Amino acid sequence: MNILYDERIDGALPPVDRDALLNDLREQVPELDILYREEELKPYECDGLSAYRTTPMLVLLPRTLEQVQAVLKLCHARQVPVVARGAGTGLSGGALPLEKGVLLVMARFNQILQIDPAARTARVQPGVRNLAISQAAAPFGLYYAPDPSSQIACSIGGNVAENAGGVHCLKYGLTVHNVLKLEVLTIEGEHLTLGSDALDSAGFDLLALFNGSEGLLGIITEVTVKLLPKPQAAKVLLASFDSVEKAGGAVADIIAAGIIPAGLEMMDNLALRAAEDFIHAGYPVDAEAILLCELDGVEADVRDDCLRVRAVLEQAGASEVRQARDEAERVRFWAGRKAAFPAIGRLSPDYYCMDGTIPRRELPAVLKGIAELASEYGLRVANVFHAGDGNMHPLILFDANQPGELERTEALGGKILELCVKVGGSITGEHGVGREKINQMCAQFNSDELTVFHAVKVAFDANGLLNPGKNIPTLHRCAEFGAMHVHNGQLPFPDLERF
Amino acid sequence: MNILYDERIDGALPPVDRDALLNDLREQVPELDILYREEELKPYECDGLSAYRTTPMLVLLPRTLEQVQAVLKLCHARQVPVVARGAGTGLSGGALPLEKGVLLVMARFNQILQIDPAARTARVQPGVRNLAISQAAAPFGLYYAPDPSSQIACSIGGNVAENAGGVHCLKYGLTVHNVLKLEVLTIEGEHLTLGSDALDSAGFDLLALFNGSEGLLGIITEVTVKLLPKPQAAKVLLASFDSVEKAGGAVADIIAAGIIPAGLEMMDNLALRAAEDFIHAGYPVDAEAILLCELDGVEADVRDDCLRVRAVLEQAGASEVRQARDEAERVRFWAGRKAAFPAIGRLSPDYYCMDGTIPRRELPAVLKGIAELASEYGLRVANVFHAGDGNMHPLILFDANQPGELERTEALGGKILELCVKVGGSITGEHGVGREKINQMCAQFNSDELTVFHAVKVAFDANGLLNPGKNIPTLHRCAEFGAMHVHNGQLPFPDLERF
Repeated sequence: MNILYDERIDGALPPVDRDALLNDLREQVPELDILYREEELKPYECDGLSAYRTTPMLVLLPRTLEQVQAVLKLCHARQVPVVARGAGTGLSGGALPLEKGVLLVMARFNQILQIDPAARTARVQPGVRNLAISQAAAPFGLYYAPDPSSQIACSIGGNVAENAGGVHCLKYGLTVHNVLKLEVLTIEGEHLTLGSDALDSAGFDLLALFNGSEGLLGIITEVTVKLLPKPQAAKVLLASFDSVEKAGGAVADIIAAGIIPAGLEMMDNLALRAAEDFIHAGYPVDAEAILLCELDGVEADVRDDCLRVRAVLEQAGASEVRQARDEAERVRFWAGRKAAFPAIGRLSPDYYCMDGTIPRRELPAVLKGIAELASEYGLRVANVFHAGDGNMHPLILFDANQPGELERTEALGGKILELCVKVGGSITGEHGVGREKINQMCAQFNSDELTVFHAVKVAFDANGLLNPGKNIPTLHRCAEFGAMHVHNGQLPFPDLERF
Repeated sequence: MNILYDERIDGALPPVDRDALLNDLREQVPELDILYREEELKPYECDGLSAYRTTPMLVLLPRTLEQVQAVLKLCHARQVPVVARGAGTGLSGGALPLEKGVLLVMARFNQILQIDPAARTARVQPGVRNLAISQAAAPFGLYYAPDPSSQIACSIGGNVAENAGGVHCLKYGLTVHNVLKLEVLTIEGEHLTLGSDALDSAGFDLLALFNGSEGLLGIITEVTVKLLPKPQAAKVLLASFDSVEKAGGAVADIIAAGIIPAGLEMMDNLALRAAEDFIHAGYPVDAEAILLCELDGVEADVRDDCLRVRAVLEQAGASEVRQARDEAERVRFWAGRKAAFPAIGRLSPDYYCMDGTIPRRELPAVLKGIAELASEYGLRVANVFHAGDGNMHPLILFDANQPGELERTEALGGKILELCVKVGGSITGEHGVGREKINQMCAQFNSDELTVFHAVKVAFDANGLLNPGKNIPTLHRCAEFGAMHVHNGQLPFPDLERF
């Protein structure tokens, strides 16, 4: 696949004396594992968004807090950029390395430090896998709610950095709603505790600020998350529709009826056919769209809710509503959904996954808009998404070997995100901005808002050493991109252009 | 009552030419209502924390966004401090005015702009009363969940500024969990949109950062909140205990059993007797402590949960568990709790309400610690609080006319908050830091953490014009207070001392 990474970001960084840095690291950070040979660096050249690749200058694999602190102090002293990486499963290039920066891999911080069943919390190191927390909590009847599709591999530190979501975030919230406390190190190696073991904390809400900050504010060294009791019962309904707009309307109707499903997912015909061919989940391949609606809680409540949701779905024009007959069928229904991305990967040499979020009431209109744009750009788009919270994942199918298709795909993706912004939504739901959506940030925010983002960044990292080129675009970039709402005709604070 | 306000804050501010400012305001902000006569200013000299009083230099009552913007630009140009005020019901002196500053009263921004039943949101001006939102949403079967005791009077803008809680925040979250979007103005008059109409937003989470920022970062001009469907059923259980420690233990047991009550409140003997005398709620006056546990949801679910909670309470040593027989008794049980503060006001010439939050498992130990401290200081303490989320409101009874009692009360209050910090808790749950707990912030945070708070403040308000002297203490103050964990033996960033 072609490589989309914009060399200007590395190009704008000052040169780094790699050998001198390597010597310093060896001297000043005892027993730190350092990768520096070309073949060792190669596996780290991208995260889950493989279209963007850069070879990092050095890869550092610390095991202790002291090592991380020493690395940060040294990099700060030498003004070397630092990109943090967890499991490398991110989908927006948030952990894309820099040729002139070190990649700080936190994967070896993989200890579960404490499960406290009375407080219903888990205290873990940032490299612990999302699913491992639920596994460790299972003997106490507890689990960690946010469940990104990559939960078997992704790390909790990365989940915090990207404010990850998942199928169940409609009912149980995003990562930010499930984290109680963070221990972090600033680029100067100072240690901060954000949040507390209690449910509230004084002062500015820096805990929330760190969630989704994509490694720009500090390095996460410990995470305390909330655990929830496992629901007594879970049932799933599968509804078929003869149009995607009707399915979108049904989503709004369910929420308006006052029901909060544990998950409410939508797949259009292209997506559900691909999943069915791959997984044989039992999906109705003639439907234009299906909804999967999961209800959880105590038995009696779930039974009631299933009846209410069925009534709403039928009222909204569902041609068929099926309840999974048993746990095996429930798991199969979900297996199809969870395998939708690789399933679509079988339809097309390449695909590009978007992550826009819109107000739920706009679902039918935006789905129609995407179909029109797809036809205009001559590309196929499959829709698979967390419909309940308006978090869309349009997948654009393309072939990077066909001249121009990659560029057309990028352009269509940009248009789709701009459509999300236009209806009052956001360019990201759960994948983050990273390197991928940096230009769309210019459409989402005006120059005053971007200036505040930069000023907040300066509060933590005045020299812009942490993950430069991700999440928050420079005003200069936005002016070039041409999408910025420039305030009073001029760029404020030109000195904030430095990162 | 004696006045506790520390004149040094006003003293440290540069002088302001009031007459010149008044002239400018009259010229540059057409039709702005300005109060400037002594007798007009008097009603604004304090908020709900009446022990702190200062006469503001001027009181401004804008009606339009343009007026607020013009006031801010003018104050920024003249470097005049601005304190925002909503309904003035805050309990930590967050809206305490300054002799050398203007008080910007947002009470006239009192329009409900939109109720969107499909999106389940309300878009309102900041001066709208908390309860008025639920009243406007009621015809759609919806309500706004956070319910501070002052909900009949307090405004949503103030709720956001203080990140207000209430009886139901255990299940439904604090204000920050129920706000989707804010429109704000910076001190320079720039307009920012924080959050979005969708459930997610890109970039740093400035929306969460603004919640609880106590008027230090900007002026809130519009608030979009989430609405929830009104629960089908609500039942309340009243459990009596022969010790406060047992009641505290029962709270932890209920949560550990995986039940999330809509409200879980505790009152000790002093508090419940006072409430009973005042309201005749039907409380058992011989109990050392009572718990009120409300369960809401669909009928069948609530019925099940009541049985489970009753079993847990009995297991935890409750001497009696009563379920409110009907809606009238349920309302009466709550009326006693909601009137607890004024009821205690009848027992003592003065009382001082604390607001610490602790991990739930520490409840029995902290209750014991408070009793010991109270006896040591020779003062009575009544305990009334949101037990479910560990948010304590010890009320210290005193008589300000007895020499030394006020000082002893303040000292005891400080000790109680330090105890909360020591067990991993926070010095505020829902009332905010304001002017009242500014010294305890030095116990809660170390100098690196305070430095970051200051740097974030600088990102929004470099000259420290918005609500100086509240929420975030200067490092200088902390050094004087003697409680700061000074990093490496020195105060970092002395230039951050300027506000």
